[in-house]
Amino acid sequence: TGEATSDHSKTLAKIEHGTYHHDWQGFYDQGKIPWVYRPTMFSGRLEGQFLKSLVSIHKPKRILEVGLFTGYGALSMAEALPADGEVVSLEICESLKTLAEELCKESHHAKKIRVEVGPAMETVKRFVAAGEKFDMMFLDGDKKDYLNLVKVAFDENLLSEDGTVLVDNAYFIGGAYNPDHPNHSIAMEFLKEVKSRPQLHYVMLPMNDGIMMIRRMKDVEREAA
Amino acid sequence: TGEATSDHSKTLAKIEHGTYHHDWQGFYDQGKIPWVYRPTMFSGRLEGQFLKSLVSIHKPKRILEVGLFTGYGALSMAEALPADGEVVSLEICESLKTLAEELCKESHHAKKIRVEVGPAMETVKRFVAAGEKFDMMFLDGDKKDYLNLVKVAFDENLLSEDGTVLVDNAYFIGGAYNPDHPNHSIAMEFLKEVKSRPQLHYVMLPMNDGIMMIRRMKDVEREAA
Ligand SMILES: C[S@@+](CC[C@H](N)C(=O)[O-])C[C@H]1O[C@@H](n2cnc3c(N)ncnc32)[C@H](O)[C@@H]1O
Ligand SMILES: C[S@@+](CC[C@H](N)C(=O)[O-])C[C@H]1O[C@@H](n2cnc3c(N)ncnc32)[C@H](O)[C@@H]1O
Repeated sequence: TGEATSDHSKTLAKIEHGTYHHDWQGFYDQGKIPWVYRPTMFSGRLEGQFLKSLVSIHKPKRILEVGLFTGYGALSMAEALPADGEVVSLEICESLKTLAEELCKESHHAKKIRVEVGPAMETVKRFVAAGEKFDMMFLDGDKKDYLNLVKVAFDENLLSEDGTVLVDNAYFIGGAYNPDHPNHSIAMEFLKEVKSRPQLHYVMLPMNDGIMMIRRMKDVEREAA
Repeated sequence: TGEATSDHSKTLAKIEHGTYHHDWQGFYDQGKIPWVYRPTMFSGRLEGQFLKSLVSIHKPKRILEVGLFTGYGALSMAEALPADGEVVSLEICESLKTLAEELCKESHHAKKIRVEVGPAMETVKRFVAAGEKFDMMFLDGDKKDYLNLVKVAFDENLLSEDGTVLVDNAYFIGGAYNPDHPNHSIAMEFLKEVKSRPQLHYVMLPMNDGIMMIRRMKDVEREAA
């Protein structure tokens, strides 16, 4: 599957390398991250190239990413955006904004990425109040926020008409199918909420820890001939 | 994954049921199909809903499907097409055109499907000669045709600008990763050809037997800011 997917750009390779070789223990010891992050948290080549291809098809002008980490997902999507497109990425740790910007800086596409530091739900509420809209949302931050983010997307229309929400780790790191997993109850609550809404269309892509692709049913099911 | 994907339409459920309960042995005995087809050959719910969601994002006007079988994939895509959209589906067995049309007929979206009976490569060559174009291609017929279909799509531009080719069974029923498999050499030849073309961007989606999503690199990698 890796072999049968296009290679990533030089800068994405640099982010991958930088993520694996970063001193996460040191970051934690300095109080810059809440626990010792695993480098494997980044979305990776297959998912990155899938996002890139999908962005090139979808043609969003503005993308909201929740959870920047080292910038791999943000840059993968930015590479497929037009010059005036934008990825707004939310990240709770200031130090990761600095690290991601450092790792991305050699790419000309980095200018399309804007990072907002702070707890995602707070930033998102500010965006709603300001009437901001996004054509695509990539949820990849705190799993406990997923349910509220989906509500904000569809009930408060943070997601524009014909937009798409992509939910990463939609198996909740295994919690969706393992009843003993600490994430099991939030996974079930999330799934129940999505399934309870006939106005949503959703597909679970079996890639990595699951990517759920959610759109408004009226944008998917079209008029008959 | 099935649980976490939208339900399919009544007519798609009818096709699924009709596919499982059809007398394939009888069809074979009457010389209508070249061997006893397995009902599991149809694309199925997850893939069908993925195609449907992707079509709703991509907004192709014309889709070419290679390999109709009982019409499940064709109708899944047709449901997401606008009223003036079209799925042209190629099928070598006349009897399957009849069966699929019978199974699809209750759906109002069935009018968007046109079936062309005959060997796919011959039909495709006629299309190229007539200057026809497709915005999306879903390859799901004879695996030996894949390589030539990709060449026709990109070298003879049967695929329109900004179009996408989706290759089903891109693991070649396991042949891609099993060197003893009878499909191994055609799988390797196909992959080698795709990888040898820097003007193509490709992603292998790990769904069912693999779906490869191929686009022109210039349509995926966009201008920098
Ligand atoms: C799985 S990583 C994101 C990976 C990234 N999207 C990529 O493609 O490589 C999750 C990130 O979300 C951040 N995060 C966690 N809770 C958050 C919150 N409440 N608000 C904003 N960011 C948060 C973490 O600091 C971490 O960097
Ligand atoms: C895997 S099935 C297609 C499944 C269908 N696309 C779906 O979504 O359910 C393959 C079909 O391709 C047809 N086929 C095989 N060789 C062909 C050829 N050379 N030209 C056209 N159709 C062909 C078979 O008869 C069979 O119905």
